[in-house]
Amino acid sequence: MATLAVPESLPSVAEDCEQLKKAFEGWGTNEGLIISILAHRNAAQRKLIRQTYAETYGEDLLKALDKELSSDFERVVMLWTLDPAERDALLANEATRKLTPSNWVLVELACTRSSHELFLVRQAYHARFKRSLEEDVAYHTTGDFRKLLVPLVSSYRYEGAEVNMTLAKLEAKILRENISEKAYNHEDLIRILSTRSKAQLNATVNHYNNEFGNAFNKDLKFDPKDEFLALMRATVKCLTCPEKYFEKVLRLAINKSGTDEGALTRVVTTRAEVDMKRIKEEYYRRNSVPLDRAIAGDTSGDYEKMLLALVGHENA
Amino acid sequence: MATLAVPESLPSVAEDCEQLKKAFEGWGTNEGLIISILAHRNAAQRKLIRQTYAETYGEDLLKALDKELSSDFERVVMLWTLDPAERDALLANEATRKLTPSNWVLVELACTRSSHELFLVRQAYHARFKRSLEEDVAYHTTGDFRKLLVPLVSSYRYEGAEVNMTLAKLEAKILRENISEKAYNHEDLIRILSTRSKAQLNATVNHYNNEFGNAFNKDLKFDPKDEFLALMRATVKCLTCPEKYFEKVLRLAINKSGTDEGALTRVVTTRAEVDMKRIKEEYYRRNSVPLDRAIAGDTSGDYEKMLLALVGHENA
Repeated sequence: MATLAVPESLPSVAEDCEQLKKAFEGWGTNEGLIISILAHRNAAQRKLIRQTYAETYGEDLLKALDKELSSDFERVVMLWTLDPAERDALLANEATRKLTPSNWVLVELACTRSSHELFLVRQAYHARFKRSLEEDVAYHTTGDFRKLLVPLVSSYRYEGAEVNMTLAKLEAKILRENISEKAYNHEDLIRILSTRSKAQLNATVNHYNNEFGNAFNKDLKFDPKDEFLALMRATVKCLTCPEKYFEKVLRLAINKSGTDEGALTRVVTTRAEVDMKRIKEEYYRRNSVPLDRAIAGDTSGDYEKMLLALVGHENA
Repeated sequence: MATLAVPESLPSVAEDCEQLKKAFEGWGTNEGLIISILAHRNAAQRKLIRQTYAETYGEDLLKALDKELSSDFERVVMLWTLDPAERDALLANEATRKLTPSNWVLVELACTRSSHELFLVRQAYHARFKRSLEEDVAYHTTGDFRKLLVPLVSSYRYEGAEVNMTLAKLEAKILRENISEKAYNHEDLIRILSTRSKAQLNATVNHYNNEFGNAFNKDLKFDPKDEFLALMRATVKCLTCPEKYFEKVLRLAINKSGTDEGALTRVVTTRAEVDMKRIKEEYYRRNSVPLDRAIAGDTSGDYEKMLLALVGHENA
């Protein structure tokens, strides 16, 4: 389901490093060469390139990229080159900072990664920031947002497919009661969203839909302007149909007057190796325009080229 | 700091298994032989013995022990033989059950293990119970207890020694304000206890003590009968001076009219390989009786022999 395209016959890691070094040298940077290498290597291969580059030239590849590139193109290459867990730790840290706060990004990271991936993010967070992820999230949020976000980023959900239907029915009823009473921040509602396995939660919201005639997320739209309710809906969407969640983030990022490059770059770099094919299908279904054409119409230059390489333009 | 004594020259794993098999066979069980082997092998060695036993005799060693042994002796041998993460997962699960609930055991497991050990417990919990630890804890608790216990069992604290003194002062003040207002369940108080690193929390309570003239835990004793306050004090103790916490659990278990074998067995099996030497020092300092003598005075038979072997009676 990834869109990342790795060539069948690869140059050696040493050759990749040599080419990258060449791309940085001389008059001006060879951005095309950088894209042709990095955008076509998977996470394990990029990690090896980064290690070998540091050993060979005594400089972190990321530092070199930082010196040579700029603005949106720099950001997309930098995020892409990072190890997925390190990248997520960085995104999470930015999301807790005063200047770039984003509860949405925290929900996205906590709910669309596998349990083990989220644990690796927490490990990477320790290593890079000398604090824990939940510590920073708890410190920088308050009230209902804290109540929802801290358990989400601390979760280690069971990932088996087993579903307890009796429990699903019981908890669908609890959700219904909380919603009827407009108790959207009720501790049971948050408990169910933040601790149940994705399979179990899916069964619960399906039963809710069947039993009460309305989708759970529709009922959470009581006040469309309420930011906490919007975040709850994003939580449910990320947990039960991530490709639809990502389609919407891309749609809003592209349709905005003045593209939201932050969101576009984040989704492309974090999903290209995971489920971008499904997201592209969803995008086409919802917008009647292929994602790569929409990206091409909204971006330009090396930034555009890098994004298109990652979403698999060539085989679109 | 462990009291576990492993002989310098060990028989092979196959020999250990053969001897164990022999101990189960014939008329009556040879409990002494079982103790002489299992009580003197570390976690990695016991794991190998369990694997080899299963491969050789087609039966799980734990099943065989279950058939041959009974009551307190069975429990101590069984808990000891388990892999530490599996053992903790089992103890945590029992603590969430209706018949054997224990918020204390949950606090103990969440706060005296290292961050990585606690993560391994959560993994083992998935494997054995097909649910997540935090899911069961959240489901089986309510109110303030849930508010405290869920973040504690979900935590993955930073473990570096770095301390931010400005933050420690700020948070000591927050703790003081919460306590002055008797807001013992205040979300900031719980946030600080459940997310800060042990080093940071230690600095905070030290500053509290210096600045406000009273130990934080003393101030948490406003109502000595309040169970939630007692659990908060246990949390602080487990995080900042675990050996004192364990000394107290042992003291109460032994001094009780009718020993609390559950607590005694739990502490001995979970700490023998970790910090039982420190706990013994603490016990002697507080009770003027060596721990092994206290245990010998309060227990008997094979159960006594197994406990004494684990707390290092021979070299006491």
